[in-house]
This record gives sequence, structure tokens and C-alpha cells, in this order.
Amino acid sequence: MTRPSLDGEEGLIAALRALATHPAARGLADDAAVLEIGTETLILTQDSMVEGIHYLASQDMADVGWKLAATNLSDLAAKGAAPLGVLYTHMLGANDDRFIEGLAEILTEYEVPLLGGDTVSADGPRCFSLTAIGRASVTPVPSRSGAQPGEAIYLTGPVGAAMMGFEALQGGAARDTAAYCRPVPLLAQGRALAPFVSAMMDVSDGLLLDAGRIAEASGVTVSIDTASVPLDAPETRRGDALRWGDDYQLLFTGPANTAWPIPVHQIGTIETRKEAGLLVNGIPPAAGDSLGFRHSR
Amino acid sequence: MTRPSLDGEEGLIAALRALATHPAARGLADDAAVLEIGTETLILTQDSMVEGIHYLASQDMADVGWKLAATNLSDLAAKGAAPLGVLYTHMLGANDDRFIEGLAEILTEYEVPLLGGDTVSADGPRCFSLTAIGRASVTPVPSRSGAQPGEAIYLTGPVGAAMMGFEALQGGAARDTAAYCRPVPLLAQGRALAPFVSAMMDVSDGLLLDAGRIAEASGVTVSIDTASVPLDAPETRRGDALRWGDDYQLLFTGPANTAWPIPVHQIGTIETRKEAGLLVNGIPPAAGDSLGFRHSR
Repeated sequence: MTRPSLDGEEGLIAALRALATHPAARGLADDAAVLEIGTETLILTQDSMVEGIHYLASQDMADVGWKLAATNLSDLAAKGAAPLGVLYTHMLGANDDRFIEGLAEILTEYEVPLLGGDTVSADGPRCFSLTAIGRASVTPVPSRSGAQPGEAIYLTGPVGAAMMGFEALQGGAARDTAAYCRPVPLLAQGRALAPFVSAMMDVSDGLLLDAGRIAEASGVTVSIDTASVPLDAPETRRGDALRWGDDYQLLFTGPANTAWPIPVHQIGTIETRKEAGLLVNGIPPAAGDSLGFRHSR
Repeated sequence: MTRPSLDGEEGLIAALRALATHPAARGLADDAAVLEIGTETLILTQDSMVEGIHYLASQDMADVGWKLAATNLSDLAAKGAAPLGVLYTHMLGANDDRFIEGLAEILTEYEVPLLGGDTVSADGPRCFSLTAIGRASVTPVPSRSGAQPGEAIYLTGPVGAAMMGFEALQGGAARDTAAYCRPVPLLAQGRALAPFVSAMMDVSDGLLLDAGRIAEASGVTVSIDTASVPLDAPETRRGDALRWGDDYQLLFTGPANTAWPIPVHQIGTIETRKEAGLLVNGIPPAAGDSLGFRHSR
């Protein structure tokens, strides 16, 4: 029995959105679910990593274990949440001991309990899914939708290092690969910023793409001044670095020219909504510009 | 780089247990994690389904979507919890629309919100991971470890129907396959029983195997009278039905000869711990008897 399938990921996501009508799901358009229970506000997120898609089969599995948790904890960071624990599904395979070592390292580093999960076997590429649960440190919990005209948009640190690390990993170059292999979830920074931001997210799919998502969610136009984006890559690669993800910096909006509790970089402004939601140095991106990774990563 | 791997699933689980030291994880020896936060008690579980392992590639994907949620909701049922929502990772493939239909059916039936998740692509067998989160209806939350000598052990309903359904599905027999394809999470029953049980779990891996797990966790011997186990299969298959999982009945312990809020079946007694944790009609099972599914299912 073969039925016509949905039109790839876009169709599937549309079908899932139609199902995710509970306000806690935030229309599946945010970094995480925000669930109020009693007097508590929980943050829930689930992200997966597939061999050959999200990591190279040749990578040290300790780095995969680390990154699986890091990407999910980064979603909690974007909500200003403190982690309560994780559950994950482990697909058995080679170097499981290294995977566990890397996972243990990050969970110890950020004092996050492993609460449960599942182990499975399968032939074919391995897949790991992790759910992180956190507790909101501030309500309302930051979303992508609160940016206001007249505000500025900020970034916690440079982009480009993960891209350079990935290229080094592929090509065997001397450059450090840690930025790609061992991304750092900015949990403390997220909690420090959360009470003061109007919108916040983590940059996982590319700075320009993610800035455009804040614009769409908030109904504003985000204008990025690319020269003011801090870069941890050669200047010749600035354009690529703005479209690469995996650096997991926090991208947020709030009052312009204000003092923030941690060092941040103003990289643009929020304007009333124009035809284009995103302006790059004052002009809309070219029609064929993907701005980042839109596919299933 | 290939390092020596852990010794399969057993070694991995031992390594994960060493990591899961938080009391909420219950040593990964329970159906779900039990996390206290403020005045609330949350129940968290994650189970996965892999094509060719947990379901047949030829199955209607609507049944797979249903069962993925059902198995996780059954873990909440075993804790007497009310579901708050689910997150899941969807690996894209054929008949995604059917998968979503089945998932939507069960979530609607039990009024469970879809809160979030991830979509991924991969070549090879598909894997779906789902996390269910629930709210405890009673504390202390039932575990596997509270059975006391002098009590009885009970089952909410018959076993065997899923086995017969699976065989029908494989062989094209006329018998109804719903028990295997569309298992029912006994959420209302779990909440009705939870205040009164001394131990409880859902039967996912085989009645005898799971009864032995209550014995180990509680430090008692569980004595099963096989003739008193209600059966939804031919009498000639009783032995197989006691070792097959997937029926998702609730197995629990409590006072003997007492009134329960719902119809239940007394199937044995709890005794002081003997050399064998499990007695089947008064005798320890043979050494080579697996009692159920011990592998990654």
C-alpha cells in the first residue's frame, strides 16, 4: 500500500502545525514549547541528530553525544530557562562508550540530570533524539514575536567559527574544530538576558535566516548591518558566516543604546514592517538567497 | 577511528545508569522518570519505534503513529498520570500523511496536545522517538518497588490479543489485528488504581518478564498462577501469551481479596523473597526461558 505522501518536510510541518493547536506548542514556530502547570512554567524541546546529515560518520562519537545535548540546551537558553533534565533515545552502534563520555561531559558541565530514554537497534544511519526540559526563570517567556520598531537587534558573540571548524574537520586543516564539534549552550547568558529582551532565539540555522524568523514572528522588518556582526572567520568569508548555523549564539531584540547585563553586539535595528521582512545593509536579500539552512538538519 | 564498543545494549544501559544518578531518573529501572518541581510532580518518558524492529514496513503508517503515542501514554498510565503533552521526532518517508492521521487520532481521543519536536531525513530504516509528559495524580507515584509479601498481584485484562494480531498481520489471517496495531493506553484505569496499588507497571515486554521485574525491584518473590491469567488467545497459546508483550495491560500489586475501583484479575501472590524472584505455578522458570522480550524493542 503506497499512498501519495505529503510534499516533503514543508507539507509535514503544515500538517503538524494543524495538530499543534495548544497554546503551549506556540504553533511549532518557536525554539521550544512553553507549558504552564500550576505556578510553574516548563520549557520543552526535542532535537535529533542523524548520521551523515547532522554529523559525519567519521566524527568522534563523544562530540556527537556532546552536541546532541548542546543543541537542545541551547533552545532552553533562548528561553532563559534552567535545565531540569534530559531524556534521549540511543541507537546502538560503534563507539557507544565515546558517545556516553561526551554526553556525560556536557551533562556534568551544566549539571543536567539524565532522566530516562530508550535504546534501540537498527541497520542504517544512526539517529539520536533528545528531549530537554527546563524551568522558566522569567515570565512571560521570551519568544520570537516581541520585537518592536525602534528597538535594536543584538548578538551575544561571533559567528563563523562553527563553519570554519566544519571545513577543518572535512579537510583535515589545522584549525580548531571545537566550535563545530562542541558548541556551547549559552544557558547563563540566556537567563541573564531573558528579563530584558523583547524577542530571543538561538542561531542554529544561519544568522540571516534566523533574523528573518524574528521579523516574521514579530511582524516587523529587521535591518542587519553586516559590518557590525562579530566574526570568528576570515573577513572574506563574512557572507558565508552570516548564512551558516551551528554557532548557537543568542539573537535578541530590545531597546537600542541600552546597558545589558552581559557583553553583547548590536548588529542592526528593528523597523516598522516593510515589504521585505529582512534588510541586509539596507536592501532585501536576492530572491535566490537561502539565508541559511532550510532543510531538515 | 574505531574503539572497542560497549557490550551491546546491556553495557550501554549500565553506562547510562551510572550517569542517571538523579533520584528523578529512578535508576532508569522504572517505566518513567518522576520529577518533582515546586508543588508539582511530573512524569516523563521517551520510547521509540524503528521500522523492521518495532513495526513491519508493510504496516499502515497510521497504526505506527497511533502506537508510538500509545506505548508512551501507557507508561504514563502505569504511573497514574494525566498526560500534559507529547513531543516527537518524525523521520520523513512514505505515507507521512497516514502517520499524522493515526497520531492525530490518538492525541484527539485522549486529549493530549502535540507540543513540539523535530523532523529529520535519513536513508535507511525509519525511526520515530516520542516523549510524553504527564502530571502525577497521586503521590507517592507508583513504582515497581513497593510490592509486599502477603499481597496479591493483579492484571487489568487479558493478554494474548496483540500476539494473535501480530501473527494475523504477518500471515494475512482473518483475525482482527487491532490489538497489535492500535494498543490502548489504560490512562483512566491507571489513575483509578494509582492511589491503592503498592507497585504498578504496564506489560510491554511479556507478563512473566515484567512480573519478574516487580519482584526484583521490590525484593520479593512473585508467584504467578497461570490458569488465572485472563487470555484473549487460544488456550493452546497460553504459554506464548504469557511471554508476549504489546498488550499494555497494567500489572500491579496490593492487598489480596480487596475491592478495586475497576474490574481486575488476581493472577498470583507476593511472597517473601526466595532464591527465585519469580515462580510460575509454584516452580522457578527454566534457565533458558526468556520470559519475554529482553532485546531492544
